Amino acid sequence: MHFADLLVTAIRRTGNPVCVGIDPRPEDLPIGFLEGFAGDRAGVASALGQFGRDVVEVVAPLVPAVKFQMAFYEAYGPEGVWALHTTAAHARRMGLIVLMDGKRNDIGSTAEAYARAYLGKVPVGDRFEPAWDVDALTTNPYLGSDGISPFVKVAAREGKGLFVLVRTSNASAGEFQDLVADGRPLYRHVADRLAAWAAPHRGDSGYSLVGGVIGATYPAQLAELRQALPGVFFLVPGYGTQGGSATDVAPAFDDQGLGALINNSRGISFAYRKPAFLARFGDDWKAAVAQAVLDMSDDLAAHSNSDRLRRT
Amino acid sequence: MHFADLLVTAIRRTGNPVCVGIDPRPEDLPIGFLEGFAGDRAGVASALGQFGRDVVEVVAPLVPAVKFQMAFYEAYGPEGVWALHTTAAHARRMGLIVLMDGKRNDIGSTAEAYARAYLGKVPVGDRFEPAWDVDALTTNPYLGSDGISPFVKVAAREGKGLFVLVRTSNASAGEFQDLVADGRPLYRHVADRLAAWAAPHRGDSGYSLVGGVIGATYPAQLAELRQALPGVFFLVPGYGTQGGSATDVAPAFDDQGLGALINNSRGISFAYRKPAFLARFGDDWKAAVAQAVLDMSDDLAAHSNSDRLRRT
Repeated sequence: MHFADLLVTAIRRTGNPVCVGIDPRPEDLPIGFLEGFAGDRAGVASALGQFGRDVVEVVAPLVPAVKFQMAFYEAYGPEGVWALHTTAAHARRMGLIVLMDGKRNDIGSTAEAYARAYLGKVPVGDRFEPAWDVDALTTNPYLGSDGISPFVKVAAREGKGLFVLVRTSNASAGEFQDLVADGRPLYRHVADRLAAWAAPHRGDSGYSLVGGVIGATYPAQLAELRQALPGVFFLVPGYGTQGGSATDVAPAFDDQGLGALINNSRGISFAYRKPAFLARFGDDWKAAVAQAVLDMSDDLAAHSNSDRLRRT
Repeated sequence: MHFADLLVTAIRRTGNPVCVGIDPRPEDLPIGFLEGFAGDRAGVASALGQFGRDVVEVVAPLVPAVKFQMAFYEAYGPEGVWALHTTAAHARRMGLIVLMDGKRNDIGSTAEAYARAYLGKVPVGDRFEPAWDVDALTTNPYLGSDGISPFVKVAAREGKGLFVLVRTSNASAGEFQDLVADGRPLYRHVADRLAAWAAPHRGDSGYSLVGGVIGATYPAQLAELRQALPGVFFLVPGYGTQGGSATDVAPAFDDQGLGALINNSRGISFAYRKPAFLARFGDDWKAAVAQAVLDMSDDLAAHSNSDRLRRT
């Protein structure tokens, strides 16, 4: 199966383009959550795993995809990476599309090793086995085509996906990404290459398995890039906590309400901390997660083409 | 202790600037090496761990530093990451400076999570503990200053190091890195920012704990950047297998023979495969590793200021 087709199917089934980001900082866990776990690094890692699986179970019937931020798991060493592995596998078993946000990048056979790790298979004796088997990975384009091609090759072979950073959502994103060369900012040069990387790998939905990361906090660029990159799915971070609104992300969608996955991490998994939710749900942090997903889905539908998804 | 001072001390002690890269692809392991291990993913991961520890033991008396390529360990899932963790700890116990080549990049608190993971400490109950505790990490600058500052902050607090990609060694490196904006190529814009990130963090040696990655395969840029970035240590990949020669890397050094670590990965750890070494050392792949280190050190000394290290 082709990644973009899987994604489109999942978005149509759930009727929304919400990606729930799981960024488990221990400091942000619900009060008391850590208490049931051992007081060492392995214990915290187990708690991160449990929290992620809890979030997954709440959101699995509601959204097409989840995105794991690898940094927060790597922070707890190999034990943290184990927790990520079991959580990601749980999310796939629950039917979610699983994106791994690692922003990996390297060249040649090293890039291929990352691609095989997360999207493909690795040699074990005389056979090949998956090590991670997630649906898609984020990558960083700074090294140019020979840093991206190995990811594309493996993704295409396995029907998996890739999201290449184009325009990020942070305040200093423009420091390099907006530098103008030959009349176009760097991010447009990256977008032009992305169009070429993506073109040979479109599925039945018309979308490629090679997508791009474009921040919600720069709506003008989102509109410009939607025009420039038909057939390229956008993973859009920055909605919610980082300041991007439903109106800001509206230009990311095509006229079917497809073409974009809007990510929200802390605004969903740590929704229990919003004063209104604390008042309404108290200790029931999972109810806050579910409500935050529904609110976001409604907010997107009210301000963008994503309302189309509810009518098809 | 300050990372750059540690590095300078280690380079002076060993009399050479060689960094041994450990990139354990199972396909490249000595014939028969995998036979002692279980025939599953965990078995391959154990073999990678054992191979890395064997390389570490051979090179620990000979060189200042080793660099682990994370991709090859991540390829074997959490078991691979465990193998990396134990191997890196072993290398530090053997007195080597340990660089983790992960090219990590993200923004804000996510970048900080990576920095705390590899260079700092993470919260465990009411205290902070190291999770990885290596000496330095490679990072990718595409996201701009707020993607790098969290790494610098943690590194400075802990006396650890950072190497930011500036000009990489691969064939298509120039696709984005050489785009000219405001009269200067992108990599020079990155270098200018790097100068500013590095300046406040110089140690007694005059070198900063914030360094740069500059490929051996572009000697003209190496010379230009050595001029532009005094006080910034260079990690130079691309010597050997990728085609960089001792003459190519000569411009990376200052007049003391300091300021650069020259990495060689497969040319050292898989040196046993060179026909001349096969004839000379046969199955003794460790003897080939040791000889490859000595040859590289001699080669650098014959063609660069690094001969100065032998006389101080």
